[in-house]
Amino acid sequence: MTDKLLFRGGTLITASEMFEADILVADERIVAVGKDLTAPDAQVVDVQGKFLLPGGFDPHVHYDLPMFNTVSSDDHYTGTKAAAFGGTTTVMDFIPQDWPTLEEAYQAWRQKAAKSAVDYGFHMNITRWDDRTRAELPRLPEWGITSIKVFMAYNGRLRLQDGEIFEAMRLAWQHGILTMLHAENGDVIDILVREALEAGHTEPIWHARTRPPEGAVDAVLRGAMLAAQAEAPLYVVHMNTAGGAEMLQYAREQGVPVMGETCPQYLFFTEEDLKRPDGAKWICSPPMRTEADNDMLWHALEQGWMSTIGTDHCPFFYDGTKPIVYEGEEIAIPGKELGKDDFTKIPNGLPGVGDRLPVLWTEGVVKGRLTPQQFVAYTSTNPAKIFGLYPRKGTLAPGSDADIVVWDPDMKVTYGVAVAQHRTDYNLYEGWELTGFPVQVYLRGHLIVREGEWLGRRGMGQYLHCGQPTIL
Amino acid sequence: MTDKLLFRGGTLITASEMFEADILVADERIVAVGKDLTAPDAQVVDVQGKFLLPGGFDPHVHYDLPMFNTVSSDDHYTGTKAAAFGGTTTVMDFIPQDWPTLEEAYQAWRQKAAKSAVDYGFHMNITRWDDRTRAELPRLPEWGITSIKVFMAYNGRLRLQDGEIFEAMRLAWQHGILTMLHAENGDVIDILVREALEAGHTEPIWHARTRPPEGAVDAVLRGAMLAAQAEAPLYVVHMNTAGGAEMLQYAREQGVPVMGETCPQYLFFTEEDLKRPDGAKWICSPPMRTEADNDMLWHALEQGWMSTIGTDHCPFFYDGTKPIVYEGEEIAIPGKELGKDDFTKIPNGLPGVGDRLPVLWTEGVVKGRLTPQQFVAYTSTNPAKIFGLYPRKGTLAPGSDADIVVWDPDMKVTYGVAVAQHRTDYNLYEGWELTGFPVQVYLRGHLIVREGEWLGRRGMGQYLHCGQPTIL
Amino acid sequence: MTDKLLFRGGTLITASEMFEADILVADERIVAVGKDLTAPDAQVVDVQGKFLLPGGFDPHVHYDLPMFNTVSSDDHYTGTKAAAFGGTTTVMDFIPQDWPTLEEAYQAWRQKAAKSAVDYGFHMNITRWDDRTRAELPRLPEWGITSIKVFMAYNGRLRLQDGEIFEAMRLAWQHGILTMLHAENGDVIDILVREALEAGHTEPIWHARTRPPEGAVDAVLRGAMLAAQAEAPLYVVHMNTAGGAEMLQYAREQGVPVMGETCPQYLFFTEEDLKRPDGAKWICSPPMRTEADNDMLWHALEQGWMSTIGTDHCPFFYDGTKPIVYEGEEIAIPGKELGKDDFTKIPNGLPGVGDRLPVLWTEGVVKGRLTPQQFVAYTSTNPAKIFGLYPRKGTLAPGSDADIVVWDPDMKVTYGVAVAQHRTDYNLYEGWELTGFPVQVYLRGHLIVREGEWLGRRGMGQYLHCGQPTIL
Amino acid sequence: MTDKLLFRGGTLITASEMFEADILVADERIVAVGKDLTAPDAQVVDVQGKFLLPGGFDPHVHYDLPMFNTVSSDDHYTGTKAAAFGGTTTVMDFIPQDWPTLEEAYQAWRQKAAKSAVDYGFHMNITRWDDRTRAELPRLPEWGITSIKVFMAYNGRLRLQDGEIFEAMRLAWQHGILTMLHAENGDVIDILVREALEAGHTEPIWHARTRPPEGAVDAVLRGAMLAAQAEAPLYVVHMNTAGGAEMLQYAREQGVPVMGETCPQYLFFTEEDLKRPDGAKWICSPPMRTEADNDMLWHALEQGWMSTIGTDHCPFFYDGTKPIVYEGEEIAIPGKELGKDDFTKIPNGLPGVGDRLPVLWTEGVVKGRLTPQQFVAYTSTNPAKIFGLYPRKGTLAPGSDADIVVWDPDMKVTYGVAVAQHRTDYNLYEGWELTGFPVQVYLRGHLIVREGEWLGRRGMGQYLHCGQPTIL
Repeated sequence: MTDKLLFRGGTLITASEMFEADILVADERIVAVGKDLTAPDAQVVDVQGKFLLPGGFDPHVHYDLPMFNTVSSDDHYTGTKAAAFGGTTTVMDFIPQDWPTLEEAYQAWRQKAAKSAVDYGFHMNITRWDDRTRAELPRLPEWGITSIKVFMAYNGRLRLQDGEIFEAMRLAWQHGILTMLHAENGDVIDILVREALEAGHTEPIWHARTRPPEGAVDAVLRGAMLAAQAEAPLYVVHMNTAGGAEMLQYAREQGVPVMGETCPQYLFFTEEDLKRPDGAKWICSPPMRTEADNDMLWHALEQGWMSTIGTDHCPFFYDGTKPIVYEGEEIAIPGKELGKDDFTKIPNGLPGVGDRLPVLWTEGVVKGRLTPQQFVAYTSTNPAKIFGLYPRKGTLAPGSDADIVVWDPDMKVTYGVAVAQHRTDYNLYEGWELTGFPVQVYLRGHLIVREGEWLGRRGMGQYLHCGQPTIL
Repeated sequence: MTDKLLFRGGTLITASEMFEADILVADERIVAVGKDLTAPDAQVVDVQGKFLLPGGFDPHVHYDLPMFNTVSSDDHYTGTKAAAFGGTTTVMDFIPQDWPTLEEAYQAWRQKAAKSAVDYGFHMNITRWDDRTRAELPRLPEWGITSIKVFMAYNGRLRLQDGEIFEAMRLAWQHGILTMLHAENGDVIDILVREALEAGHTEPIWHARTRPPEGAVDAVLRGAMLAAQAEAPLYVVHMNTAGGAEMLQYAREQGVPVMGETCPQYLFFTEEDLKRPDGAKWICSPPMRTEADNDMLWHALEQGWMSTIGTDHCPFFYDGTKPIVYEGEEIAIPGKELGKDDFTKIPNGLPGVGDRLPVLWTEGVVKGRLTPQQFVAYTSTNPAKIFGLYPRKGTLAPGSDADIVVWDPDMKVTYGVAVAQHRTDYNLYEGWELTGFPVQVYLRGHLIVREGEWLGRRGMGQYLHCGQPTIL
Repeated sequence: MTDKLLFRGGTLITASEMFEADILVADERIVAVGKDLTAPDAQVVDVQGKFLLPGGFDPHVHYDLPMFNTVSSDDHYTGTKAAAFGGTTTVMDFIPQDWPTLEEAYQAWRQKAAKSAVDYGFHMNITRWDDRTRAELPRLPEWGITSIKVFMAYNGRLRLQDGEIFEAMRLAWQHGILTMLHAENGDVIDILVREALEAGHTEPIWHARTRPPEGAVDAVLRGAMLAAQAEAPLYVVHMNTAGGAEMLQYAREQGVPVMGETCPQYLFFTEEDLKRPDGAKWICSPPMRTEADNDMLWHALEQGWMSTIGTDHCPFFYDGTKPIVYEGEEIAIPGKELGKDDFTKIPNGLPGVGDRLPVLWTEGVVKGRLTPQQFVAYTSTNPAKIFGLYPRKGTLAPGSDADIVVWDPDMKVTYGVAVAQHRTDYNLYEGWELTGFPVQVYLRGHLIVREGEWLGRRGMGQYLHCGQPTIL
Repeated sequence: MTDKLLFRGGTLITASEMFEADILVADERIVAVGKDLTAPDAQVVDVQGKFLLPGGFDPHVHYDLPMFNTVSSDDHYTGTKAAAFGGTTTVMDFIPQDWPTLEEAYQAWRQKAAKSAVDYGFHMNITRWDDRTRAELPRLPEWGITSIKVFMAYNGRLRLQDGEIFEAMRLAWQHGILTMLHAENGDVIDILVREALEAGHTEPIWHARTRPPEGAVDAVLRGAMLAAQAEAPLYVVHMNTAGGAEMLQYAREQGVPVMGETCPQYLFFTEEDLKRPDGAKWICSPPMRTEADNDMLWHALEQGWMSTIGTDHCPFFYDGTKPIVYEGEEIAIPGKELGKDDFTKIPNGLPGVGDRLPVLWTEGVVKGRLTPQQFVAYTSTNPAKIFGLYPRKGTLAPGSDADIVVWDPDMKVTYGVAVAQHRTDYNLYEGWELTGFPVQVYLRGHLIVREGEWLGRRGMGQYLHCGQPTIL
């Protein structure tokens, strides 16, 4: 139960609208949106000159994820806290299929995630396609999970074969579950990685060179065509190539219900960054590509080919041998340095959940590439709709959770690791000059961030039961 | 001043949202949108199970328009009343440049339009490009007019040359005025019409045969390229061809700020209809084309290539020698029969302002081609934004005019001239079975239509001062 | 050694030219092309009013192919004889990898093929990708084989995995060997076939329904992207879908060296034909699809997206229980009737090698869809170039083999099984009225067909050593 | 009458072929193409290791063209001599409609052109569309003219209105005459030029800035759509924009019989060149654009969107006050310096007829962007076919004129004004290093250029009667 709050004088932005109004909040929800609202018992929040946005919804994060003998450095607490600092109040995390049953996996992940500081839902990875999985899959919605993720890469670890993907997505949709796809060509990657290592190539750039972009292009269309055959929708995660974007749109034009997600890192960086001395910082899968790819991905956003922008947040320390101070304590977690002599041992992933909104606002809205409404649509409304959490999340409608971001469009920030609050020792956007920043963040009516100050707490995030996915 | 109204229990639909909420209306405006709103002094309107839509916004109507020795049969009263019956509460009418000055034209049209029953704004036709027009054009916004229309067809009557259009759109945008374009190739039309008449071809089908679709395709791209050169935005009216839609999207993909409007008649009918014995009913400019064109226009709406759906409402009697009874009086206005021996004498135009929402709901939303939100965007929000009337019109936000349509999604209607309320003797959709219909229509909080009953009155429409156009 | 021949008065057609000239032939080759050539010792062939074409080159035939406990009904003699009747003097047959080594397979196939009546070359199927195959592959050119074929379908029998295909095409090209691809998605097919049988679906139409077109679309792009990654060219056989054609052209526009082949059956027939009582006659893999696919494949030929037209000739008897008379003897070979209760047991394939030129001339050239030069390019010059046999084959240049077809453009033929000379009991084009037909066919200067009379003989075909493939 | 010639040992290249053969020439024509030809009375030309190409065919040159109070500096003798040095033996010149009747124009131009040193045909400009022109147009084929050119730019001088173009192209095709189009938007150009001059902009770059590329894009599609409506083919000259190429291909994909020509200058230079101190050298209409445009035009050639490469040869002196020595005499003709204070007074045009083949061979064939066959197709075969001169011109077939270029693929040349033989004082390709060059050029069997030595003579060119155009 929260106090009543009356946001007075702001400009609301939703996926299609932009208008001045007051917002009245009570009992964690938005109660009314109106002109000159009055509520004698409410605390008034003066937001004159500010924008009010629905809390960011990041459809793609990884917390506390074991990888390569270490673990991603943000857990469900630190990673959701970081999200909040960047204006994001809902995150969707992936459950590895690392237990004998899906139910055990779900239970284990619920437990790990209980410390979350913002609201969260789950996608379920499906990385084994056996009778037990087939039998259990239909039960996911009981637990509030209505999305699974499959992989066309990571042979021998995560990959399913095409026929398995076909069966999984068909069965999933019969039970109202949306399939998400990691779209690369695992076969070729495995060959190229082996050959690169045999040839003594160990530098980070070989991460990109052993995962050619054409494999992603192929895989996007393959996924879409499997979806068409399975009569099921598909959501392609972290799209990183121009050709992939073209294939996505090709399939959409044919009427195939396929949706695409990209991430900020694919809009700003390229393989060249992997050649820097600290190139390991930019290692993620799939890799960044070229400026032409960046441009096409922006184009895809401008034209509405894509549906969402997530982050694939999965940070590691750049140098896990040197502790940082986090909430007053020294902490060090093995990270990118694990692969200093072998690019295949560099943990794949990077921080991003907190960077997403501020960076995209400056680069997208301020620079005129996205309207404020598109910004909200891509970062909040669309993911909420797709993953069955709308209108509870993703909008500022009466009845919605009072996840409200007070955005100061005039605020100037020199961004970087000192501003971002990820539990890691670097930030991709170090030194970027941003205009526009979240100055207050409310989670279900609770003020959790105020001008860089953390007012939230461990465990205050709620687990979200996802409903029926929507095809956008 | 209206009574306070409290719409209770409905589902609001906007251009991106769909959620259950109450709406409180006072002083002609929406005051609040909320959950379980209370207002002791308000009259409660029970809208349980109904959808609440922002009033329809028709960006393209013609009332009381002189043509071919007669006049379009709906004047500003009857035509706006018809609009209301179909759920449309804002219309944009075109002022002919038929007076020595634009100011006189504006004044004369204000006078004619004063009897309007719903709110209305104006576009100004620019059909002479002389020094006086150049000098006066910048004053249009003073009078609340921020859009002009130019023609690439109707040589010797309405057409401007390419250079004139270039200059007009450039000057217009320098003063915040958006240019609209009638895109056909007037030169070829004139030649083909002359030849058809010389060859003794008089039937309605020759209307289509003398206006080949390729002329529209050319003109759409020509308009867009002129816009690019003039660094001004463009709005192409009543798009009717597949190729035109492709050219629109081609230009948009290139970053040219060009927007497109189509109309229901181009989604449903073809040249074949002109071959019917009563083919004259389907005569409008540009003509309907083929099923392949219809399909591509639907595709363009699904994919977001188009921005709006208007009507180009401009009805004539099919047989103006036989009176109909309208508001208790017999009325007959010369119409299509004028051209029974010469297709060039058939007045160009057809009814549509009232048909738009009901027909598109059934054919678009019910049949799954458009989401409810797209329906609202195309028929209300987008035109309101483009023509500078948002958020006063086009949405259900606090502060917006209380133009509210109560839509019964389950209502079945056998549509036709007896249901539609246009002042003419026929309807294009005669006998169509519709599902979903506006059961109450509020104009600024005044109930003007209730289940087919007219509660509005002549002159209650307000003139709307359009603001800065928005490029969508 | 042949006599000297002087073709007098004809019009030569090549892939880009069309002009009147005489042709002088000696020693099995074209010696000169000229005006008013004289050669006192030559036999004059009067071809006034006729076209002279280079002999047809069919890049895709199967002779004597074991399948489903039977064998395709044309062997290397009957099938090449049938080719000749249709104006085709060069065929490329596929060697199954059905022996322990490639060399044994090659030797065995050489033996089988020795009875060929026209010239022939080989492609090698690669359906196992093991160390022995890897080691032996580079030796193919020694034997005159510079093309291999891989399969993305027929799991467990012929299919290679993506990584194997990648390795195979890369290794192949390093040795000047072109990879050909059967592009379907084997995984999905296997699932759907199993399910169809479980559901009791046994009719021929289920052959098409269990091989959805989307699998071919995916596979074409996948193949092209693997080729791009392998830096090797690719040739996609028997393309049958609109989407596949679009993907081919998409990849070509990106600069990927991928070429496409289609076959006449994909230009004329659809899945509907499989629903006929004798639908089994139309069973081939991949299946015919829809009229929209036919149209797009024609479009692809008109626009130059495709490079060749082959046949995938692989006939079976429709009713192998009823003998036909062939060269005076009764013959019956089990055929389509094997699958009368189970579509998966219907041998896949149909006659075509002899139909190709006459049917395409009428439907392509006479109907104005292809120029005579395009006809020659697709059916002779391009395959000869691609498979390293140009300019020995595929043109009418001096030095080329004197494979000359005398084509009567005015001849009318009612086509069908009685005209075609395939060793089977039906023809797909039964009753088609054709205009234009080969009236004389010369193989290396030997007249082997004269107005429907067979003058050739078993074994007169030569084995062709293919050279370096050309990328078109 | 020429001596008999026997070209021995060369490799012939045609639009689709490449093979070794001898060529026998007699009576100005190719008599035979063959292996080991013998002709005791023939002079043997040893062309071992050389390529033999059909003489270049430049479909677009201007000789002796009055412009801006001067005249283009190559007349029909010097300009055809320059052509020959570059391997071009056929040129098509344009007759201005500068006489009262077309017949007078034709006669006058025949007289001027009589001094030509290579063979030549004519296109007729149609720049007045009046009754006399309408009446006379059908007579053009009598005089051997089967192509007209119309202009969408140069208002008040050369331009026809859309309706006039429509009528002209329709009437022309009814008489077997092909229409060529200069595609820019004259209206906008006139406005921008006037404004630029008013603003005091006089530099060469303003030539490009006052002719925006969008006008060309529009005009290409407009031309194609007019052609579709007129049911006539169209040939768009000197295409210079990416968008224009896209529109050309768009129309071709729709089945519109429209063909495109580009010129070398549009493949290599950009607006940036106009900013050089000697930028006036690059002034031509339409202007060069950007590298992206260059790239797309190359792409269009690679993909077969375009049909020909011409030159629009129309040279002027860069500094007409300083004489050059030409054939031993000093000559100076006012040129680019006329516009040193006003870009609109700079004569539009540049040298090119001789540069075309050598520059394109190096940049196109040697660099792998075009095959040798495409090179021949674009620069010789296709224009000959399109303008009704095939197979007399454009190929190496028996019966064809013995226009033979002996091309040394290994010859290295540092190109420039000293090598080129245009009668002007500069060359666009100054200092370019070329590989491959014409070492002998034969016109109808007469050797006219031998390793840079001029053996031809004034007036030896023949006037060519063009036949029925071919649509490619």
